[in-house]
Amino acid sequence: MKTQYYTASSLDGFIATPDHSLDWLFPLADINQSSYPEFIAQIGAIAMGASTYEWTMRNSDAVAAETGSAWPYTQPVWVFTHRELPAITENIYFAQGDVRAVHQTMSAAAKGKNIWIAGGGGLAAQFFDAGLLDEMIIQIGSVTLGKGQPLFPRQVLNPVMRLKSVQQMGEGMVELRYDIVV
Amino acid sequence: MKTQYYTASSLDGFIATPDHSLDWLFPLADINQSSYPEFIAQIGAIAMGASTYEWTMRNSDAVAAETGSAWPYTQPVWVFTHRELPAITENIYFAQGDVRAVHQTMSAAAKGKNIWIAGGGGLAAQFFDAGLLDEMIIQIGSVTLGKGQPLFPRQVLNPVMRLKSVQQMGEGMVELRYDIVV
Repeated sequence: MKTQYYTASSLDGFIATPDHSLDWLFPLADINQSSYPEFIAQIGAIAMGASTYEWTMRNSDAVAAETGSAWPYTQPVWVFTHRELPAITENIYFAQGDVRAVHQTMSAAAKGKNIWIAGGGGLAAQFFDAGLLDEMIIQIGSVTLGKGQPLFPRQVLNPVMRLKSVQQMGEGMVELRYDIVV
Repeated sequence: MKTQYYTASSLDGFIATPDHSLDWLFPLADINQSSYPEFIAQIGAIAMGASTYEWTMRNSDAVAAETGSAWPYTQPVWVFTHRELPAITENIYFAQGDVRAVHQTMSAAAKGKNIWIAGGGGLAAQFFDAGLLDEMIIQIGSVTLGKGQPLFPRQVLNPVMRLKSVQQMGEGMVELRYDIVV
């Protein structure tokens, strides 16, 4: 069982615009032609920050167009938030504080499958800080954003990240897979 | 003849730390095993910002260890700066203002070879703004810096950047080549 940070990023390291938009992403690749279907099939539990959760709620039309469903996850989802947010479907849990305890709960729920840290970068960094992040799988889109929400707000120097594979997806995207060895 | 922005970047889009250090870069790959020798052989003129120039002067020992020479360029170099800086060797010119006029001068000097925008990101972005940038060749190191000098401080959305090739260099680096189509 692995804990994986799987996300798309601009070439200059932003996963969303300053106002959390992902509109730059959709023209770049067809999600069904990507590694996503194979990836999500191995996921047993999902963690996301409040901004990612709110983006999914706010953009249910776009999400449905991309994935076929306004709430595309059958897995239980833990939303890390300090605010009161509505649970828009079953199987949504709200969490805060130390990620270690939540990770234990998620591991049990995942039943041997992997755990997806869906974003944002700050949440993925908290799992890294706790020594719980095993892989980063980053789709780099052929765009720059100039500013926005950071991919991973930490300094992680050689040789912690090991580039294991590279997969080009046309002119719009490349997927980089890193093992995290701490 | 092409105008190329060729640089190394962290995965999160920084070409140097906040204090312009490149120490994170050297452990990642051997420059002589990279595309650099083939790239530099086709370069006829180089543009760089003041910080890049000052870094090269300040780190002549590290530069010599990597490249074999404290000032590793035989090509003429244009340094964009608003300050008075010393010319540490022949063939160094100081420039400021609109990049278009300087680009014309550089094109003549390059005698049919390519022009290298060595960095930083702000200078590369000025060439892009002027419609003069043809390619971005980015070596993404297997590190994150969290903060630092930006790779390319502009928003450039699909389909301007076209990913043409991807070349993995071990676990420490991958090179991405983009055509800029404006």
